Amino acid sequence: MSSLSRRDLLKAAPAAALPLLAGRLRGDDPPADPAFPGLTVRMYEPQNLEFPLSALKSWLTPNEQFYVRSHFAEPAVDPKTWRLTVEGEVEKKVELTLEDLRGMPAVTRPTTLECAGNNRAFVVPAVAGVPWGPGAVSNAEWTGVPLAAVLEMAKIKPGAVEVILVGADVGTVTGSPGAIHFDRSLPLEKARKPEVLLAYKMNGEDLSAAHGAPVRAVVGGWYGVASVKWLTRLVVTAKPHAGFWQTTDYSIYRRRNGLPEVAPITTMQPKAAIARPALHEAVPAGKPYKVFGAAWAGEAKVARVEVSTDGGKTWDAATLTGEDRPFCWRTWEYAWKVPAEKGRAKLLARATDADGATQPEKRDPDRRNYMINHLVPVEVIVR
Amino acid sequence: MSSLSRRDLLKAAPAAALPLLAGRLRGDDPPADPAFPGLTVRMYEPQNLEFPLSALKSWLTPNEQFYVRSHFAEPAVDPKTWRLTVEGEVEKKVELTLEDLRGMPAVTRPTTLECAGNNRAFVVPAVAGVPWGPGAVSNAEWTGVPLAAVLEMAKIKPGAVEVILVGADVGTVTGSPGAIHFDRSLPLEKARKPEVLLAYKMNGEDLSAAHGAPVRAVVGGWYGVASVKWLTRLVVTAKPHAGFWQTTDYSIYRRRNGLPEVAPITTMQPKAAIARPALHEAVPAGKPYKVFGAAWAGEAKVARVEVSTDGGKTWDAATLTGEDRPFCWRTWEYAWKVPAEKGRAKLLARATDADGATQPEKRDPDRRNYMINHLVPVEVIVR
Repeated sequence: MSSLSRRDLLKAAPAAALPLLAGRLRGDDPPADPAFPGLTVRMYEPQNLEFPLSALKSWLTPNEQFYVRSHFAEPAVDPKTWRLTVEGEVEKKVELTLEDLRGMPAVTRPTTLECAGNNRAFVVPAVAGVPWGPGAVSNAEWTGVPLAAVLEMAKIKPGAVEVILVGADVGTVTGSPGAIHFDRSLPLEKARKPEVLLAYKMNGEDLSAAHGAPVRAVVGGWYGVASVKWLTRLVVTAKPHAGFWQTTDYSIYRRRNGLPEVAPITTMQPKAAIARPALHEAVPAGKPYKVFGAAWAGEAKVARVEVSTDGGKTWDAATLTGEDRPFCWRTWEYAWKVPAEKGRAKLLARATDADGATQPEKRDPDRRNYMINHLVPVEVIVR
Repeated sequence: MSSLSRRDLLKAAPAAALPLLAGRLRGDDPPADPAFPGLTVRMYEPQNLEFPLSALKSWLTPNEQFYVRSHFAEPAVDPKTWRLTVEGEVEKKVELTLEDLRGMPAVTRPTTLECAGNNRAFVVPAVAGVPWGPGAVSNAEWTGVPLAAVLEMAKIKPGAVEVILVGADVGTVTGSPGAIHFDRSLPLEKARKPEVLLAYKMNGEDLSAAHGAPVRAVVGGWYGVASVKWLTRLVVTAKPHAGFWQTTDYSIYRRRNGLPEVAPITTMQPKAAIARPALHEAVPAGKPYKVFGAAWAGEAKVARVEVSTDGGKTWDAATLTGEDRPFCWRTWEYAWKVPAEKGRAKLLARATDADGATQPEKRDPDRRNYMINHLVPVEVIVR
């Protein structure tokens, strides 16, 4: 096709015909759309990879698609020499091999993890940190031992308040006191709950290196930061831990006496994420379209999801679908009649939990660059 | 399905069966895969949206999928009152309306634009700036007036060396001297070349606000930063411009007398981008797979693309396909026999241009956080 004829065609052609004029790739067709379309890179190393939410097709996220959030290079942990110690405010120091742990009574539970920085690319003005889109969230079935059972073996001393989970991963980040391990504490009250596991399997497979092999924490209802990967030490303390990863980093401000105080990030906030249509997806004018996505609410259950197609003036109930399990996302759908007029349209979704908590319309700066669940419209192209 | 039966199934099931066990979304099937799957958000506002390279299906990128790189909020420009001035080292100050410009002889040319920060998410260790994946690159057919024709009207004075292109967009960024417009200069030698347009149409449609309406520059062969959007002023100068966007920002170091000197970013470097398989895509073991992508080389032509499946030890020629036009990407493909063994595989692609320039194996720190074309493997899952 010569330049001239192309130009003439372009002038005469309605915009919708353009992809045809431009031609499919030559040779032959590209391979069929894959079952697993891959992950979106947010940072190549340390590995920070996002689940492409528009590819949501199952309630459990396949292991290869589960989002990856790493702070440092994956540590080389040999499962043969790996040990988990329980130390600090305990009557009896405990050291477990992987065999020991796997020999204990196992539990399998599905749990949704969401990064505390999920949706950060939508914050205006932009804030520091990995700029995740909507897909730093995934749901898997985890197999392991309740953290409570391991703490029980060590016999916690009276007066102890927290347990610090220490990972084998280590490195330096802006503002860190030199090279530090990743660590995070849990109040003992939470640590003893059945939704807190020391997991060695994910969807029936041994944990991969990217997901914290051989053993990671899985803390149901809390942001992913609590689910420390590559676990090696459990340190029971008599005072709340004020480590880097819950003060300088992964913290928010809470007001007390009108004064902001730094507090660690804990429970996931209610959120309804629209999987499809995707941002800037083209949807056919005047046709019905099934909007769908997932919603979660931390330790609470999702009570309802609503959708607005008029910028938040009115809201319609979406239908909750599929599995309904604690500490897990719930899928939902909504039958949308796409406007007949071509142009742009905006969709909003919001979740409300069983306690009546819902999503804010505006961003609260006390949340710093975390816990991002204010309403953000998904703009689509009607054509 | 009860928790127990799911657990039993998970224990018994091979990993590949898991998505089936987890079940498709209930209700009914999700909508079919869309013709335009949307864009990847890198920053919501100012809008920075990435073309999903794995969705590459045509040589020309549809307007809705063309990557968007904006430094400030889209300025409100009224095409009725819009003026383009030519000032500075000219014999005759020129002021053009949109009607004037559209009345001049028009040219339509395809041109590939790539952001100077494309692939930035792959830089190790991470650097400042919007962390683009591989898709801050697109190809469109632009219609407009050669910049040379407008400069000609103003009669440039002898001794002038550059023309500064000034956009209507304005704002403050880290390190900027207060609120500044986006501006960028071109040496007059480049500015007068036929590949430099003042464009008002993109793939046959009037420019959208996101792409610089009513008029933007399109500078063939140079990184996208030169293609200033929302153009309002052309300032001809007797000295090279040392503006913020070509010194503090969008600059690299060049060595002279062994000393690093700041220099503006200019021509796009050779690069072969793998569109499919996507990063972490699952590919079927032991089967043939058509690897494909696009390659470009700035002002030069792509001479060849090679693919390595052994980490760069050996390279095979890929086949260049489709349209072969100056200042445009070239599509390519490579027949890969996927290994029979399940696990991970890594693919590398590299482009060499007609002058023999090719892609470096390692990142050159003199390039700061720009011009990113070192070799990065695409890891995929063989299953």
